[in-house]
Amino acid sequence: MKRVFRNIGELSTATGSAAIGGRSQGKLLILHNAWLLEEDGVIAAIGEGNAPEADESVDCFGMLVTPGLVDCHTHLVFGGWREHELAMKLQGKTYLEILAAGGGILSTVRETRKANEDALYEKTRKLFLEMLAHGTTAVEIKSGYGLDLETERKQLRVVKRLKDEFHDVAATFLGAHAFPEGMDHEAYVELLCNEMIPAIAEERLADFVDAFCDDGVFSAEQSERILNTGKRFGLVPKLHADEIREIGGTETAARVGAISCDHLSETGKEGIRALKDGGVIAVMLPATSFYLKKPYGNFRGMIDAGVPVAVATDMNPGSTPNLSLPFAMTAGCLYGLITPAEMLTAATLNGAAAIGMADRLGTLEAGKQADFVVWDAENLDQLIYRYGTNRAAAVFKRGVRVSG
Amino acid sequence: MKRVFRNIGELSTATGSAAIGGRSQGKLLILHNAWLLEEDGVIAAIGEGNAPEADESVDCFGMLVTPGLVDCHTHLVFGGWREHELAMKLQGKTYLEILAAGGGILSTVRETRKANEDALYEKTRKLFLEMLAHGTTAVEIKSGYGLDLETERKQLRVVKRLKDEFHDVAATFLGAHAFPEGMDHEAYVELLCNEMIPAIAEERLADFVDAFCDDGVFSAEQSERILNTGKRFGLVPKLHADEIREIGGTETAARVGAISCDHLSETGKEGIRALKDGGVIAVMLPATSFYLKKPYGNFRGMIDAGVPVAVATDMNPGSTPNLSLPFAMTAGCLYGLITPAEMLTAATLNGAAAIGMADRLGTLEAGKQADFVVWDAENLDQLIYRYGTNRAAAVFKRGVRVSG
Repeated sequence: MKRVFRNIGELSTATGSAAIGGRSQGKLLILHNAWLLEEDGVIAAIGEGNAPEADESVDCFGMLVTPGLVDCHTHLVFGGWREHELAMKLQGKTYLEILAAGGGILSTVRETRKANEDALYEKTRKLFLEMLAHGTTAVEIKSGYGLDLETERKQLRVVKRLKDEFHDVAATFLGAHAFPEGMDHEAYVELLCNEMIPAIAEERLADFVDAFCDDGVFSAEQSERILNTGKRFGLVPKLHADEIREIGGTETAARVGAISCDHLSETGKEGIRALKDGGVIAVMLPATSFYLKKPYGNFRGMIDAGVPVAVATDMNPGSTPNLSLPFAMTAGCLYGLITPAEMLTAATLNGAAAIGMADRLGTLEAGKQADFVVWDAENLDQLIYRYGTNRAAAVFKRGVRVSG
Repeated sequence: MKRVFRNIGELSTATGSAAIGGRSQGKLLILHNAWLLEEDGVIAAIGEGNAPEADESVDCFGMLVTPGLVDCHTHLVFGGWREHELAMKLQGKTYLEILAAGGGILSTVRETRKANEDALYEKTRKLFLEMLAHGTTAVEIKSGYGLDLETERKQLRVVKRLKDEFHDVAATFLGAHAFPEGMDHEAYVELLCNEMIPAIAEERLADFVDAFCDDGVFSAEQSERILNTGKRFGLVPKLHADEIREIGGTETAARVGAISCDHLSETGKEGIRALKDGGVIAVMLPATSFYLKKPYGNFRGMIDAGVPVAVATDMNPGSTPNLSLPFAMTAGCLYGLITPAEMLTAATLNGAAAIGMADRLGTLEAGKQADFVVWDAENLDQLIYRYGTNRAAAVFKRGVRVSG
């Protein structure tokens, strides 16, 4: 069946199937008084002016249409919440004091280990539906709240069930998210490389392998070993780096050929050069910076240096419990000093490229999947500017109206 | 008809009918496994444990219930939008350059002067419905985009129509928002005091009178004259102060007996003392600080000094186009270092007090209006912590389900 979406006030999209960096990042195709023709879940054509004939015609009331957003870095599967840490933080308690009071990431690990898989699935699915309602049509989800094979597997099985239902869900094995309580660090790296990664890969539970390479977590050497092991087992490397301090993460990411390097709030010029030379996508997480009151990172310097920049929510129960990628986009524009056009590329095509889906997602072009959002906004600038509320009026995935 | 709302996981409310300052600000009444009995739009009783009999019973599924939020400082009636200034700002253009390019507040004045009253009403009503959907059940709206009698009147007539429909809408005459293009400043103050205030008061179009007392806008002396004139005509004074620099606004507010003093991002110890001694409510606007990347103000110091603190969105097309009071609450907690409990008082009882409605709004107590929100959150901490998305599951105004 052919459906035409007409009376689109502005249609804004990046173009191409690869990640865009440098001056091209903000070069959008922008059509006015536009239409989009969809056939069997695929984009057949887009254009301006008179809409073509079709079996069904949908009036977009002069609103903005963009590709569905791609949230390429989330920790969506977890037991419990950690709202009570907020009041402690506001009263001036340090992260170490919160840890001592039973909080912090290890409390999420305890809750996730305890959680029933079906309950975990139901909770994650509800969160995913909220994201969908805010315009996110594809998502990456990491494990990393198990820190043992059984629980990491449970998390990734939840991701698999979500993938079976919603298709465009990428799974990342992040066993190297933290060190398990009371375990020798080198022994855990051994366990990750010798048992956990092989088992996860054999069960085909993950597409990507990731590690938290930072001060007090995994060293650059440990991270490199973990990512290279993942690679040998067919997983594509990603890396958390430079959130707290530069300890060589960007260079590690470049050396192992990581598809993306994420966080990067402390990355300096040499790190930017490493990403550029390595062809690594920089995934920025501005909502986390907002919630933790930490630096946002040098978005501008990365784009100017030719590094393709993507943006994601980092949704997780500790450092930023926010599901809205549009909020992250606004915060990233304001504090990263990049334009709405550069940000749209970051949240669509470059997000898709960071999870290996840019061949079918991330732009509105003939032959790509009909994943798109009709926004209650007159244009792209307005979508970014009118922050704080959900502006997604209708969300389409593979041509099916899934929200709004 | 009696209706009981049962299976409330947590019911959190401030108590009393006056603004709460100092240590009392965060002292909430918190009930668990609670119920709320409503009769003819009024709260009949609240309690814990077994719910009483009623004509109808509503299951709240263990969710959080709070009073409806009160947004006590907005500029909701305006022509046009100013989204294109965002890209200019991000490219490093100064406010003066944006003004020179035809932007800034005077562009909103031009658009508002041109706007048809019915179209303005339709637009404002849509924005108000969005606020309602985010948990705001009472609102203050300022004029100030006319800067001539005819347009200020038009704005306030739009507010009046909203008030006729939704009841709890306060109208503030803010003719002293900026100086009209090309007009002598003293001559405009004369016009405000001799013609505009008397005319607005005679038509009963406003409850409050306000002025923007800051560097480059209205001086403390001009503001005092305007507020005192308003008072003589029966309007209750409010004041914008200390957004850019302290020029004596807090002292002016105290001297004229203003009900609130708003913005206060630059207020120091002496200003806090003036507010305390004058019994003035401090209205903080954290979303504006987020959007403008300016200081958030000393929330903590104010509460500690015994000043009652309220919070509002400041919704306007220039400095913060955000309709969500919950977003402002989260930003205010994080960057103002106050607790979720203190913030709930700020967004309900103290907001109501800042617009003279605390006798009937702002708390969940027998005899008060049944304005309340059922939130998709397990507790108050979680409402503040899970920012970025709309957590209002159902919104009740005078006992009527108006959203969700």
